[in-house]
Amino acid sequence: MFDESPPNAWRLRFGSEPPALPDLGKFLNHRSVRKYKPDPIDEATLAGLVGAAQSAATSSNLQLWSVVTVMDPAAREELTSMCENYRQIKDCAVFLAFVADHYRLRRAAEAVGERAEGLGHAEFYTMAVVDAALAAERLVCAAESLGIGICYIGALRNDPAGVRRVLDLPEGTFGVFGLCLGWPEEPLTAEIKPRLPQSSIWFREKYDHGAGVGDYDERMRAFYESQRMKGDVNWSMRSGRRVDLDHMTGRETQLEFLREQGFLLE
Amino acid sequence: MFDESPPNAWRLRFGSEPPALPDLGKFLNHRSVRKYKPDPIDEATLAGLVGAAQSAATSSNLQLWSVVTVMDPAAREELTSMCENYRQIKDCAVFLAFVADHYRLRRAAEAVGERAEGLGHAEFYTMAVVDAALAAERLVCAAESLGIGICYIGALRNDPAGVRRVLDLPEGTFGVFGLCLGWPEEPLTAEIKPRLPQSSIWFREKYDHGAGVGDYDERMRAFYESQRMKGDVNWSMRSGRRVDLDHMTGRETQLEFLREQGFLLE
Repeated sequence: MFDESPPNAWRLRFGSEPPALPDLGKFLNHRSVRKYKPDPIDEATLAGLVGAAQSAATSSNLQLWSVVTVMDPAAREELTSMCENYRQIKDCAVFLAFVADHYRLRRAAEAVGERAEGLGHAEFYTMAVVDAALAAERLVCAAESLGIGICYIGALRNDPAGVRRVLDLPEGTFGVFGLCLGWPEEPLTAEIKPRLPQSSIWFREKYDHGAGVGDYDERMRAFYESQRMKGDVNWSMRSGRRVDLDHMTGRETQLEFLREQGFLLE
Repeated sequence: MFDESPPNAWRLRFGSEPPALPDLGKFLNHRSVRKYKPDPIDEATLAGLVGAAQSAATSSNLQLWSVVTVMDPAAREELTSMCENYRQIKDCAVFLAFVADHYRLRRAAEAVGERAEGLGHAEFYTMAVVDAALAAERLVCAAESLGIGICYIGALRNDPAGVRRVLDLPEGTFGVFGLCLGWPEEPLTAEIKPRLPQSSIWFREKYDHGAGVGDYDERMRAFYESQRMKGDVNWSMRSGRRVDLDHMTGRETQLEFLREQGFLLE
């Protein structure tokens, strides 16, 4: 029987004994789930989850995000082909596209004679992306509390113009990430992925310029081996390659696309 | 006795009767808490909450975020003065600055001979902001499950160079928002803020260009009155003004600052 307690989740995350943790429920246990049962998620549950998303904090209550749920198999197929053919996009119970959204506010403001002139500033791109992500993660935490598995799809940004076409997104919007929801085909047991030691990511009073990654490269090398992932690499090598110019997967033109949509103009 | 159940939270959010909701615990009940008891949050709890943040999904496991906790009263005072003098920054038990962070990965990659050349692309600004926000919101959901109150501080972006100085942030980083944590001075009862109707923010299959804001302007006018907030305005008027050029509060130069830090170069 897998030990789902916070102390055991801590051991898998950090490879060390935990401090005297409070009851953190499942908050340490997240993992991506990519295989789902064919069972649906009922409408009331989905509405409740979107309600959880809407209950997240949002800067100045501007609510600069939207979500489009996609159930149509043909649209799922198209999105899958745009997103590195990830099967979970087709197979999940509900696929959600989270959208950074200036369109609704601009339209509402203009209808009452306001001009919403600031929206082209970088600040309001940042704000919309933060709003969308806070909403999504509250939905994710709520879903996981119900036993639903999730998988974020950053690859939604590989072909933003294609996503715009499939979802009929207006100007002032950007499909910022996707999210798969479904009932896990297998129990949510192992596969809790190790993370950086806290000393590498959590600083006291001031940023520690010399922090480094501690024992993380070695822990991740062992994790990759345990998962039979290819190549003899550690986290620094693998992550460095992930951000070189050969692995942009269509995302190298994102700035241009965002400006076409009215973001980041100044 | 205040009814904290999901159905009652739904009524306050949407002004309507809920569907047959599952047990969503406190996920619908978030509100910003700005007044705290003087009681501290113990170290193990704080470490557990940062562990929850680290357990959030992160694109390709790159973990492009950091957090700096600030306890020093002089630093709190400085940050407060940079953030519209919000008292909760001084008064909270723990103040956290969430940082979009390319510095750690670039340094680790370069140490193993990788060049991390893609990081100047918009994609990796988007990714870092999403990573920081997912981490923060998982921490927030975990904190709220323990009865801790929270308040996000978007005003951390008002003076990014000042924040860089106080926190000694290196190149490749940006203080994207702050977060106050503390034990609420009053019970977390009312003040659940109404949100847009789901028909305005949740679309099926395709974005609904004509969705509008439904009854939200009227619900928010009533809410502003109940809170004795100034001016006879509705949400569209108030939000439209919030995004005009007179309310940028220092954030109008964000693009320039981000480029200085190495973000959004192409």
